[in-house]
Amino acid sequence: MIIGFIGFGKVSQNLIELIDSKDIEFITSTEGRSSKTADKIQQSDVRILDSFKDVAIESDILVSANSPGNAIDVAKTYGKYADGIYLDLNNISPDTTFEINEHVHNLVDGAIIGKIDSAEPVLYLSGEKSDELLFLNDFIQTKKISDNIGDASILKLLRSTYTKTLSSLLIESSALARNHGLEDEFFEILSVTEGEDFTEKSKSRISNTLNSRKRKSEELEQIIDYFNDDDLVMVKAALEKLNR
Amino acid sequence: MIIGFIGFGKVSQNLIELIDSKDIEFITSTEGRSSKTADKIQQSDVRILDSFKDVAIESDILVSANSPGNAIDVAKTYGKYADGIYLDLNNISPDTTFEINEHVHNLVDGAIIGKIDSAEPVLYLSGEKSDELLFLNDFIQTKKISDNIGDASILKLLRSTYTKTLSSLLIESSALARNHGLEDEFFEILSVTEGEDFTEKSKSRISNTLNSRKRKSEELEQIIDYFNDDDLVMVKAALEKLNR
Repeated sequence: MIIGFIGFGKVSQNLIELIDSKDIEFITSTEGRSSKTADKIQQSDVRILDSFKDVAIESDILVSANSPGNAIDVAKTYGKYADGIYLDLNNISPDTTFEINEHVHNLVDGAIIGKIDSAEPVLYLSGEKSDELLFLNDFIQTKKISDNIGDASILKLLRSTYTKTLSSLLIESSALARNHGLEDEFFEILSVTEGEDFTEKSKSRISNTLNSRKRKSEELEQIIDYFNDDDLVMVKAALEKLNR
Repeated sequence: MIIGFIGFGKVSQNLIELIDSKDIEFITSTEGRSSKTADKIQQSDVRILDSFKDVAIESDILVSANSPGNAIDVAKTYGKYADGIYLDLNNISPDTTFEINEHVHNLVDGAIIGKIDSAEPVLYLSGEKSDELLFLNDFIQTKKISDNIGDASILKLLRSTYTKTLSSLLIESSALARNHGLEDEFFEILSVTEGEDFTEKSKSRISNTLNSRKRKSEELEQIIDYFNDDDLVMVKAALEKLNR
């Protein structure tokens, strides 16, 4: 079996390391890539073809793992050459997924949860062809959500709805505790019921959010736009919190 | 040493079980108690005095653990007889704690976090006399926050600010997932990063909150009133969410 990659960032590199089987060959191309990426490709256990068109044609599974802004272009340009499964692992909205589905034959909509280079990432899949990818369970925990294209993207967005709103809540309540001289105690007392890693995890969430406040606030706007639901009181407050 | 109890609910009963020392005697009274409470007292390892006035006079540590609405009355009526430490463990606001401090001699402001009958409750204390209660560490994890009366109540309120707002967030995001037919998957995908007990804990938070929506919403109002801070965007949204 041949798995091809368009895009050679962390996701692709780690998948190649995780999927350790002598029955599977990896291919990609250095066509138009930066010299830094080309270096990484040359150091990896992957056969290098002249063009991504060739990669798309030869692959049984073509993996698109790019920056979200390129996901549609890649699908438009190479989707038509891919007769196998087209696995989209870009961090894209459900609407973008639906648009990609117009340009490729056998789309599977995927989302990796947990850091790809952590101990236990989980690959969530949706779309009818997902079943054919469940063999990946031998290498990375892989779960099919449903036959519906878009469900993996929607699920990822639902997850973000929770985690991004939680970050705003942590920012607000820890600031309140700090104003009362009780910030350390606030984290400590919550660790009693929320788990030992609460403090570290929460502080990391707070600083990640504050350090990329503009991007996080755009992501919250996208969530609110996509779901377009009057009941989203908490998510809208999270956005307001970040914009203050 | 003699520890006296005014109020004989879960908190008092469990403290008596936890503080297992032949050097410590427990006292209370059945004065004006329901027959059910009187039964519990008679079944416990505690000496029964004729009146709570006597309990207050004899105690080295007098523990007030009643329903929050009675906390001030108990302090007004018996505080003047207690020459030892007066440990208030009622679930009361900082303002109520400050008022109680007007009526008793050696107040220590306490908050038990984690269920008292769970494996590992933690007793948080504030007030200058807290040091004299740190021997309780032999029986229950006991931490002094500061010399400031009220800090234990404020810390408990800060904790509630987080947990009650989180419940509203869980109600909103799980409803959104349900509307998209992905509720089970929503909890499952979050468990990958939030911990194995996320689903069970979250569902319990959601049902607890929805089952006592009116009381939870009053508690949120008290938090907003007490802190009186324009920056409390998330907490106010949590209240709005519950009132819908």
